Amino acid sequence: MKDLRIGMIGYGFMGRAHSNAYAKVNHFFDLPYRAVLKAACARDKEKVDAFAKQWGYESVETDWKKLIERKDIDAIDICTPNNTHKEMALAAAKAGKMILCEKPLSMNAAEGEEMCQAVEKAGVKNMVWYNYRRVPAVTFAKQLIDEGKLGRIFHFRAKFLQDWTISADLPQGGAGLWRLDVGAAGSGVTGDLLAHCIDTALWLNGGIKSVSGMTETFIKERKHTLSGKVEKVGIDDACAFLARFDNGSLATFESTRYARGHKALYTFEINGEHASIAWDLHDLHRLQYFDHRDEGPLRGWRSIHITDGDHPYMKHWWVPGLQIGYEHSFVHQVADFIESIDGKQAAQPDFRSAQETQKVCDAVLNSAKSGKWESAK
Amino acid sequence: MKDLRIGMIGYGFMGRAHSNAYAKVNHFFDLPYRAVLKAACARDKEKVDAFAKQWGYESVETDWKKLIERKDIDAIDICTPNNTHKEMALAAAKAGKMILCEKPLSMNAAEGEEMCQAVEKAGVKNMVWYNYRRVPAVTFAKQLIDEGKLGRIFHFRAKFLQDWTISADLPQGGAGLWRLDVGAAGSGVTGDLLAHCIDTALWLNGGIKSVSGMTETFIKERKHTLSGKVEKVGIDDACAFLARFDNGSLATFESTRYARGHKALYTFEINGEHASIAWDLHDLHRLQYFDHRDEGPLRGWRSIHITDGDHPYMKHWWVPGLQIGYEHSFVHQVADFIESIDGKQAAQPDFRSAQETQKVCDAVLNSAKSGKWESAK
Amino acid sequence: MKDLRIGMIGYGFMGRAHSNAYAKVNHFFDLPYRAVLKAACARDKEKVDAFAKQWGYESVETDWKKLIERKDIDAIDICTPNNTHKEMALAAAKAGKMILCEKPLSMNAAEGEEMCQAVEKAGVKNMVWYNYRRVPAVTFAKQLIDEGKLGRIFHFRAKFLQDWTISADLPQGGAGLWRLDVGAAGSGVTGDLLAHCIDTALWLNGGIKSVSGMTETFIKERKHTLSGKVEKVGIDDACAFLARFDNGSLATFESTRYARGHKALYTFEINGEHASIAWDLHDLHRLQYFDHRDEGPLRGWRSIHITDGDHPYMKHWWVPGLQIGYEHSFVHQVADFIESIDGKQAAQPDFRSAQETQKVCDAVLNSAKSGKWESAK
Amino acid sequence: MKDLRIGMIGYGFMGRAHSNAYAKVNHFFDLPYRAVLKAACARDKEKVDAFAKQWGYESVETDWKKLIERKDIDAIDICTPNNTHKEMALAAAKAGKMILCEKPLSMNAAEGEEMCQAVEKAGVKNMVWYNYRRVPAVTFAKQLIDEGKLGRIFHFRAKFLQDWTISADLPQGGAGLWRLDVGAAGSGVTGDLLAHCIDTALWLNGGIKSVSGMTETFIKERKHTLSGKVEKVGIDDACAFLARFDNGSLATFESTRYARGHKALYTFEINGEHASIAWDLHDLHRLQYFDHRDEGPLRGWRSIHITDGDHPYMKHWWVPGLQIGYEHSFVHQVADFIESIDGKQAAQPDFRSAQETQKVCDAVLNSAKSGKWESAK
Repeated sequence: MKDLRIGMIGYGFMGRAHSNAYAKVNHFFDLPYRAVLKAACARDKEKVDAFAKQWGYESVETDWKKLIERKDIDAIDICTPNNTHKEMALAAAKAGKMILCEKPLSMNAAEGEEMCQAVEKAGVKNMVWYNYRRVPAVTFAKQLIDEGKLGRIFHFRAKFLQDWTISADLPQGGAGLWRLDVGAAGSGVTGDLLAHCIDTALWLNGGIKSVSGMTETFIKERKHTLSGKVEKVGIDDACAFLARFDNGSLATFESTRYARGHKALYTFEINGEHASIAWDLHDLHRLQYFDHRDEGPLRGWRSIHITDGDHPYMKHWWVPGLQIGYEHSFVHQVADFIESIDGKQAAQPDFRSAQETQKVCDAVLNSAKSGKWESAK
Repeated sequence: MKDLRIGMIGYGFMGRAHSNAYAKVNHFFDLPYRAVLKAACARDKEKVDAFAKQWGYESVETDWKKLIERKDIDAIDICTPNNTHKEMALAAAKAGKMILCEKPLSMNAAEGEEMCQAVEKAGVKNMVWYNYRRVPAVTFAKQLIDEGKLGRIFHFRAKFLQDWTISADLPQGGAGLWRLDVGAAGSGVTGDLLAHCIDTALWLNGGIKSVSGMTETFIKERKHTLSGKVEKVGIDDACAFLARFDNGSLATFESTRYARGHKALYTFEINGEHASIAWDLHDLHRLQYFDHRDEGPLRGWRSIHITDGDHPYMKHWWVPGLQIGYEHSFVHQVADFIESIDGKQAAQPDFRSAQETQKVCDAVLNSAKSGKWESAK
Repeated sequence: MKDLRIGMIGYGFMGRAHSNAYAKVNHFFDLPYRAVLKAACARDKEKVDAFAKQWGYESVETDWKKLIERKDIDAIDICTPNNTHKEMALAAAKAGKMILCEKPLSMNAAEGEEMCQAVEKAGVKNMVWYNYRRVPAVTFAKQLIDEGKLGRIFHFRAKFLQDWTISADLPQGGAGLWRLDVGAAGSGVTGDLLAHCIDTALWLNGGIKSVSGMTETFIKERKHTLSGKVEKVGIDDACAFLARFDNGSLATFESTRYARGHKALYTFEINGEHASIAWDLHDLHRLQYFDHRDEGPLRGWRSIHITDGDHPYMKHWWVPGLQIGYEHSFVHQVADFIESIDGKQAAQPDFRSAQETQKVCDAVLNSAKSGKWESAK
Repeated sequence: MKDLRIGMIGYGFMGRAHSNAYAKVNHFFDLPYRAVLKAACARDKEKVDAFAKQWGYESVETDWKKLIERKDIDAIDICTPNNTHKEMALAAAKAGKMILCEKPLSMNAAEGEEMCQAVEKAGVKNMVWYNYRRVPAVTFAKQLIDEGKLGRIFHFRAKFLQDWTISADLPQGGAGLWRLDVGAAGSGVTGDLLAHCIDTALWLNGGIKSVSGMTETFIKERKHTLSGKVEKVGIDDACAFLARFDNGSLATFESTRYARGHKALYTFEINGEHASIAWDLHDLHRLQYFDHRDEGPLRGWRSIHITDGDHPYMKHWWVPGLQIGYEHSFVHQVADFIESIDGKQAAQPDFRSAQETQKVCDAVLNSAKSGKWESAK
């Protein structure tokens, strides 16, 4: 078994989620590479030292450029705010490193295109952490669609609802709050939450043709942590859009951080000619399924407990009935990435695939400004 | 269309439920008889007048014996406390009237046996208002079992949970509270709630062989409304029992009025070799169904919305998706009773069938006293 | 108690629902008027005779104009296809009759305006059958909002999903299918289903400022029952729209008859600063409620079983825990209408209120054509 | 940070669950000891080598007695069939090792008593892996009860339902199937599943006074993997019992491997004077809570998503809304064990606490034979 030596940039929420995935993956999956936590990198020496110790990273760096130059690193994992992705990815590609980049790929589609071209030119393996594709219930949904179980698709609807920014006292920017700072995040819920919905939608239901969007910033001014002053809020607090897919189906998408009672309620539902499926992140281990081909009076929505050995990824875990959680989606993504290293097929979504999501996000934000339908191509 | 002239004794909760059933049934069902609200009877003239006016009864009586003697009455409906059922039923049978008796049939199995013999001797149509058999989801469950969809049955479990007597300030006896008075009710939750569970169980799963029961009276003394004094409480506040059915399946039953948060949560579940079903009264328009013969990874509990035209009784009501409620079970029971009048098959449960429930209740209460398993035959 | 003599036009699904309401209302509510089923009217003599017999109408008419002229009729109930509402309502207003008109009010806002002016000029009581306002859970939602329990509203979302027109073999037009015929219905799901969602939304959340809509007709041609030929389908099979309310909240609305697995799934959710509520028609006896003011770790969505005596309308029915169904919303509406007859306040929604819904429907359909946001005022 | 050097005996389902806990615990919890996977032990050299490699154990043993004698091991983890627990535990205690023993503690209460005395005499830290106490929702339930949120308890009910042994073709005994072999397991569902329910019940609701039990073996004979012959099945396939607790509450317990549709449905519900709670293992990240002190018409069962930082253990994991799974209960148990090492309070349940469960199990099995109520003390 060969080593896959990871160089991690960032130590926040995603830094932990990815580190956990690397630490666990070889316990549960038989793979051609062993993930090795080679080096952790962040500007703050004390914090990165503590992080490295907690997770067992063999070394630390405080300058990401140095990390990228190291010969004993095979892959760079970018877990920093969105406004840093491009520069790091371009440098890592140039250095010939594999890249695992946190989502969204970039601040916008223009940046994304640069990044795609960089990795394609360099010929390095690359992937974006749209982890929800690998929640077993979601992967299973993809299988059902690909098998034709649903038939012609009429409707797709997705939402990602949170409620953590309702208080006007919450500042923008700084540790843990950079997602509220348009300078660091590029957009609000569109890049943070809808990007997840869009990635899954494109994967499950194909390309989006056009969109009509609407955004709102409910709290217009917040104290900025970095400047210490009250500043205009530049992000979108909420965003909803209508869409038409290439396959003729209609869609509604919505995201907000002002939906009281929902912490991370990512949901989607797909209605097909023969069957429908629905899923949500608050009960991520279940898939709802309705099949019109069932015997008439016995038709009903099935609540499938996705914990059996014949459900995607589940044979690697426990026994039927025992659920896994959020973090496992990252383990699955690492497993698939490692499986792909020596193969020809890229683990998905790669940068090029994630760039499609950037285009839709741009179209949505443009439409919200123009008041018109915009092409998402 | 002939008339079925009803003489109603009692005007309480059940008096209203039955009256509503008679008033509605011919609007929704095509039947050989038209239910006619001929006379209402109760001791309190003022109250029975008001009741008759509200429901459109053509006349009133204040002496049930007179009602029973009237020539223009075809059927007597007994909606009075349990300790009056026997005397009324015996008189009505003697007078050659059809009898529709509120459940439980009687104070105990000995009384029930007298009543059975009386109606059988008189050859009058008779029925007991175990209305839950005719909630469409429950009737559908019966069909599925009879079709063999479940295969060999391993388990039956039923509960009826309420929480309305937790306060020690609630008196026993008197209007609306006779169910707490052992003199009027015979027993507490056993005759009131478990009787429903047992009736359904016998219908769905066959005879009960033996039981081991436990009862408890949590509030030992309550003011008695009639005497005005604090008196010992004679009823069982809670009762649970284990049972073995003739078909080899095992069962648990439980009932209480001390289950905080449940108003009328009657639930049952049946586990068979091939399939399982579950139902509850708080969402009476749904049936939960699991079929092991479904394709492996797609197996799940189906939540069947029992509102389609091919579900029992539902073609008589609205359109798919639109639910009916509690009261409709009584309408169905009247419809079936009317259908049975000119036929040879009695509408079920008749007295003889309801007497089986009395036997099980007696066995449970006896077991709770003896601390041993008791035969329910 | 005075009589309210009803003249019913139409005998279909709604004719039955309204008749049942008139027949039941005085059994459960103490009211100043008794609803009397005076006359039923339809062109087909045989059918209207059968209908009148089933429901106990005292007489029949085959010409609605004659019905409207009758002196012994106080109120006209219009249960015919949408393209007849205006003419009938204008005539009834002229004749000085009260009018209870099935929804939607009209084919479009222009017609609606004529109707409003007619009843206002005539000074007759008028009401439109948006029955869902009087599902107790929905009425309770209104109370909670009016009490300020939710605080500032951020989001409203509503859907009405059905699946009964997926088959291409279904014809358009004719008995039971006029809702597929644009000539009779005016529009498809917009007027049929979204109109319900919009009426409730306006009632709960105030006026809608502007909308961006999208419609689709999935099956482009269907056999027309009346002509016997395959004809272009003129209705919208599906419609979704974004909206901005006067109170600053954002909304998504969606309706379709192509959502496999949903029969009549009308749902709405409202997210406020302090609390959120959600409801759906498939479990109409429940209200979901989340209150952020609950003790932190104990916060959760409450599933409130709307069957207690202190829930709207429920003291008139059974006991806690026992649910009512779809039909009861019509009973409540009749009860409120009767209460309003001698008062100054109109039972809502009256024509003028229902006209607001027509305006939103028109704006949505216009936006779907123009590809732009349209004012809903 | 000191090392806690683990010697693991067994490599099955529980061997993996415990190993994962040791491997993860220091990534998420700040603890005084670091769990070190020192040695894995099993008779089959090839299998234990593979297991050790997968999990990173530093060494292997094939003789558990040798493992126990090793000076570089601090704690012995017993993950072997029930019939080996006693001998291993006695030896480990004698060798002065801490012991973490898989549940149930022993084959019966007599063995359990020997084990308790051995660890108490040796003064070694000891714990039994009743992991469900540390599912955050269950721990939270304990907190609520201890705070008095529920008030006087009236009812406790628990079930553990599975369906994996319905096929008569399943053999008894051998790898993965020793739970069907009475010689290895001691009992069937009683020791395997009900033991979990009883442990939680005793923890949440105090001591059990007496029980009335019933057992059944549905499939009477199965091929024995070891002998190759069809042999009588000695275990209980299903077991249910009634119980009375010291606090006066009534209980029902049930367990089976013949409940079609349920994989590992461990559920419990507790009804108190003021509030009730319910939980189930199929959605282990939720707690259902009803509080009668809520404002009347707003009372409802709350579905609490146990993912907030103020829920037990959850601040160590991700962010609100993101659920953890089954395996995390083991991580929590290791964390608590490690915290307890240098303290005076034993991490619970220790052997003495787990012995109480053995006594109840014995009483249940005795009652099932005697047909009488038996003391559980």
